[in-house]
Amino acid sequence: MDLHALDRYIKSLIKEAGHRIRSSFRMEIEIESKSHINDLVTNIDKEIENFFIERIRQDYPGHRIFGEEGFGDDIKDMEGVIWLLDPIDGTMNFVHQQRNFAISLGIYHDGVGQLGYIYDVVNDDLYHAVKDGGAYFNDEKMKPLEETSIADAIVAINAMWVTPNRYVRHEDTIRLIQDVRGTRSYGSAALELAFLASGRIDAYISMRLSPWDIAGGAVIVNEVGGITSNFKGEQPNLLGSDTFIAANPSIHGRILSDYIQIK
Amino acid sequence: MDLHALDRYIKSLIKEAGHRIRSSFRMEIEIESKSHINDLVTNIDKEIENFFIERIRQDYPGHRIFGEEGFGDDIKDMEGVIWLLDPIDGTMNFVHQQRNFAISLGIYHDGVGQLGYIYDVVNDDLYHAVKDGGAYFNDEKMKPLEETSIADAIVAINAMWVTPNRYVRHEDTIRLIQDVRGTRSYGSAALELAFLASGRIDAYISMRLSPWDIAGGAVIVNEVGGITSNFKGEQPNLLGSDTFIAANPSIHGRILSDYIQIK
Repeated sequence: MDLHALDRYIKSLIKEAGHRIRSSFRMEIEIESKSHINDLVTNIDKEIENFFIERIRQDYPGHRIFGEEGFGDDIKDMEGVIWLLDPIDGTMNFVHQQRNFAISLGIYHDGVGQLGYIYDVVNDDLYHAVKDGGAYFNDEKMKPLEETSIADAIVAINAMWVTPNRYVRHEDTIRLIQDVRGTRSYGSAALELAFLASGRIDAYISMRLSPWDIAGGAVIVNEVGGITSNFKGEQPNLLGSDTFIAANPSIHGRILSDYIQIK
Repeated sequence: MDLHALDRYIKSLIKEAGHRIRSSFRMEIEIESKSHINDLVTNIDKEIENFFIERIRQDYPGHRIFGEEGFGDDIKDMEGVIWLLDPIDGTMNFVHQQRNFAISLGIYHDGVGQLGYIYDVVNDDLYHAVKDGGAYFNDEKMKPLEETSIADAIVAINAMWVTPNRYVRHEDTIRLIQDVRGTRSYGSAALELAFLASGRIDAYISMRLSPWDIAGGAVIVNEVGGITSNFKGEQPNLLGSDTFIAANPSIHGRILSDYIQIK
């Protein structure tokens, strides 16, 4: 696989998809709910996923596609080359804010992340990484994450996970909130991973994410030295929904050992 | 008071202050803690407040200044013209992210908000309002807030306020988090008020804010029909620290009556 040729191809594809999304702001958007009332999807999510799939099937017929909207392949293993795609990560922000959402894309080969992309469509900011080739914010090389501590950390976590939930003891999450310097919540896993890789936050925690939410971001985060795992400390689940933490290496282990108790 | 002349003067002052802040990114910033370990202040916060004070004293000698860093006047009443200034609202973001902070400024006459400014320095985005003259995002007039409901609302609230605290029963805040469509937290009261006025979020809630955090934003929010108050439903406290809520008029009352129980 020629990673650099594929990287150039993907960048051009993502920019074209971003242009289509920005153009959609002038149209009426159709909004539906999926698994639950606040799990939104729009016609634009679907159109953009189909745009990617048509191009990939034509230009890379041997590759498989695992997309949020389900128009790709039925993925049950990680063999070969797989594109993990969220055409609009942060659909609620897309609908309510027309900003703070991203195209999220990871290219994996036999389960190993090779290329990662997070495209902040409205700001025209592309975060990307090539495995062992560095991570970039637009054309600027991103620096390795600097050491930090729990007390100095800014953690991205949605307030929902500080309330009683079925995944973890929320009493522990409360202690985490109280022990860190501050918390934030932006409503897009992909952007939160981009911010982590940029050093603007030091950890990102979610009780339930899907492979396409994290696949692209994990490649970028890993490339600057950040650690990604589920709450058991295992490699992130790329085949189904799971818990997820991405963090600065100096606090990843301590958050898991001291502040997360799985139910 | 010629509001329009003052408005032009202030815009030019804010843009110059913004330029000084952006220039500071190239320098080493000195960081200290104030009231507690995570209440940060930098030399830039102080320099920018002093920049404003020198100009105001020279050009508007009859006006008084109530600034976060305390270099202004000792304000114990709201008589006459008062500038309520936070030179950098969101200092933690300024330090950790070099973005997501704002200059916040409100001009009050005998306690009534006349002019409000929130300047997102890094994005060069100015939100401002002249009482009864409309609110603007840069040169674009902002629209009145549209009706919404608790179930459709995005609420900005820091996860800290969902943990046990001395201000309100956190069990009620938990119910709020569970009943709304989603929550966000950006770490700058001023920007959160700007986002509310823009319709990107529908409420912003904090247990403890200072007059300079809310003075500018309240003028802008009120001008598009949003309601601002403390948790008792009274006018926001402009003389000292207090609880604060700003919300779309269709949910302000219901949040206070159904989800906030003051301790």
